[in-house]
Amino acid sequence: MISHHEALEKVLATATHFGSEKIPLLESLNRILAEDIFADRDFPPFDRVTKDGIAVNSQALENNKTSFKIEAVYAAGSPQGILNSLENCVEIMTGAMLPKNCDSVIMYEDIEIKNGIATLQTEVKPRINIHRKGSDRQSGEKVLSKNQRISAKEIGVLATVGTSKVLVKKLPKIAIISTGDELVNVEETPLPHQIRTSNTLSLFAALEKEKITPTLLHIRDEKDIMLQQVENAIKNHDVLLLSGGVSKGKFDYLPEIFEELKVEKIFHRVLQRPGKPLWFGKQQEKNVTVFSFPGNPNSTFVNYHIYFIKWLTKSLELEDRNSEVILNTAVDANSNITRYLLVKTNAENGEIKAELLNENGSGDLISLANADGVILLPPEKVFEVGDLVEFVSF
Amino acid sequence: MISHHEALEKVLATATHFGSEKIPLLESLNRILAEDIFADRDFPPFDRVTKDGIAVNSQALENNKTSFKIEAVYAAGSPQGILNSLENCVEIMTGAMLPKNCDSVIMYEDIEIKNGIATLQTEVKPRINIHRKGSDRQSGEKVLSKNQRISAKEIGVLATVGTSKVLVKKLPKIAIISTGDELVNVEETPLPHQIRTSNTLSLFAALEKEKITPTLLHIRDEKDIMLQQVENAIKNHDVLLLSGGVSKGKFDYLPEIFEELKVEKIFHRVLQRPGKPLWFGKQQEKNVTVFSFPGNPNSTFVNYHIYFIKWLTKSLELEDRNSEVILNTAVDANSNITRYLLVKTNAENGEIKAELLNENGSGDLISLANADGVILLPPEKVFEVGDLVEFVSF
Repeated sequence: MISHHEALEKVLATATHFGSEKIPLLESLNRILAEDIFADRDFPPFDRVTKDGIAVNSQALENNKTSFKIEAVYAAGSPQGILNSLENCVEIMTGAMLPKNCDSVIMYEDIEIKNGIATLQTEVKPRINIHRKGSDRQSGEKVLSKNQRISAKEIGVLATVGTSKVLVKKLPKIAIISTGDELVNVEETPLPHQIRTSNTLSLFAALEKEKITPTLLHIRDEKDIMLQQVENAIKNHDVLLLSGGVSKGKFDYLPEIFEELKVEKIFHRVLQRPGKPLWFGKQQEKNVTVFSFPGNPNSTFVNYHIYFIKWLTKSLELEDRNSEVILNTAVDANSNITRYLLVKTNAENGEIKAELLNENGSGDLISLANADGVILLPPEKVFEVGDLVEFVSF
Repeated sequence: MISHHEALEKVLATATHFGSEKIPLLESLNRILAEDIFADRDFPPFDRVTKDGIAVNSQALENNKTSFKIEAVYAAGSPQGILNSLENCVEIMTGAMLPKNCDSVIMYEDIEIKNGIATLQTEVKPRINIHRKGSDRQSGEKVLSKNQRISAKEIGVLATVGTSKVLVKKLPKIAIISTGDELVNVEETPLPHQIRTSNTLSLFAALEKEKITPTLLHIRDEKDIMLQQVENAIKNHDVLLLSGGVSKGKFDYLPEIFEELKVEKIFHRVLQRPGKPLWFGKQQEKNVTVFSFPGNPNSTFVNYHIYFIKWLTKSLELEDRNSEVILNTAVDANSNITRYLLVKTNAENGEIKAELLNENGSGDLISLANADGVILLPPEKVFEVGDLVEFVSF
């Protein structure tokens, strides 16, 4: 059996690119940019007025002029205006282009307007209330980087520079396959020896966050049917996420089936809990990556985050932000396996503390619901209160 | 002008419930549970075998018996089996019901099977490798709570207890309305005095996270058209999020229009930056809440999170997890306004540190893209490196 560390390295070594595609801007939330994005013009694109009021020439202010005849009114969205006489002013609104011959904006709060004449009510500064052309970004400057995840803010930036179609990374086509004859559908009333399927639905929902809509499939524990359905799934997907069928049981046919379908076993069984029976492999010919998780819900969900999400992050060339939390309970990890313990995290005084959840180790999905993630405890170590430990968030 | 604190109180005082609705399980990700969820049976629902191997009666082990004739094989998903002779064993798979007359499971790793006889290879313990009926949850126990957000884990729990249709909080119908004649669509090439719309698209994307698909509307700065379109929007929505049109400019018609449409002004202008011109009100008759943000993108996006998201959180009765971060730069907030400064956060050694972004205060959406959120700096205070400050995440 290999260690968690070796297993993760082997998983990451198979990371794959899936190409890129152009999609409409409003569909691109949470997708990954596949190109750098540049400013298509200066930002702001013109000397932009930042207060409602009047625009004047600073010469007049320097000559201690305090009253200005209003020549015209310009709104945001008007073509650039002009101040004809440097003794006068124009009324101007936030967002408008600074008119020609003007270099100062005085806000309404500082003037009084009567009979077409604006009069200063207080001393004012020249050359203010203007957001200078190109002061945020110059035309051609990079505004967003390739391999960045697109959040709501990035949508705004993409809109600003006119990217109505966005080049994003393609996502893998994924099949989630459950096995196990004890499983029935959610809407069914299970017989005493049956339980409802839940694993695959948790994974389905988890993939929604990644903007992936997987195929959901349940296969009966019959070898011929299994072989045929896994073969089909390999034909039509880039990744298979399976749960169940890789333990040592008599009806755990998956390892044999993978062999028949030329899915090369990269490893089977890892020195870890939960998830010892984890099977991982690759069908080289079709470039399909196969994660075969143990059947119990906790184990599948945890290993999905520990292995699959890290693989996906690497495949999409996203930055993998490792995070650490502060342990608030001592843990004796005195064994030869890596342990993943469910924790609830609390941010207190700017520190992230991990509280261990009381699990009975049974793979109880209901305890899982209280967890924010797992801490990873390497083998043969004792952990004290206050120790920093690696954290994988759900 | 009122303070940020007063403004937020007034906003939260108008929080509204929108009722509840039943939706299919797989559509419920990120929605808010509108009812407590209870276990419909014990979990596990039966004494569940947790290892592949043989099941025996512990009497035989106590009598130092080491070889067992295999009576039968039971898979997961089979009805409960039975061990006829307490001297014998049955082969049993993970996930199966413990057969009658058995109370101990011995895993394959600890036995050898030859000619239908299983022989112990090592000393084994009685009464292990069984996950006891009801040990995770008893029938009728609460497994999820009302007002909880449904994440992938909760989808699994809901599936486990058979909730194929989930009662969730209804979400408000929202219109996002931009004003400002300088705005053109993303796919257009702006004239020198024009800019592309971006505000509304950022908000559209931000609402996608809340599972709300808003109506997007742009209104020209013409009072009659504005009046008619805002009136329409009020008829068909629970919330209006507007940007632009509430400053002191000549074409900032919105405050008048709100008055004509009986949208009661709760406040206009707040001692804060960005977002001083923020307008907030309510149309009582139709129960429509109106957030009217200033036109600049940074200001709108920040105030959306500071006010609207907190209002939505309260309306949906979600827990509002206030968070704090550690300042890594001294800030002199020596003014009478509350300031919202863009920060990038870093988790280091279990601590969350906030790095101030170098903004020019112009409402630059491109700087915004580098921020994880804002820190809130109350007026008349000086902040030192290491101080804890309130953080609002994007």
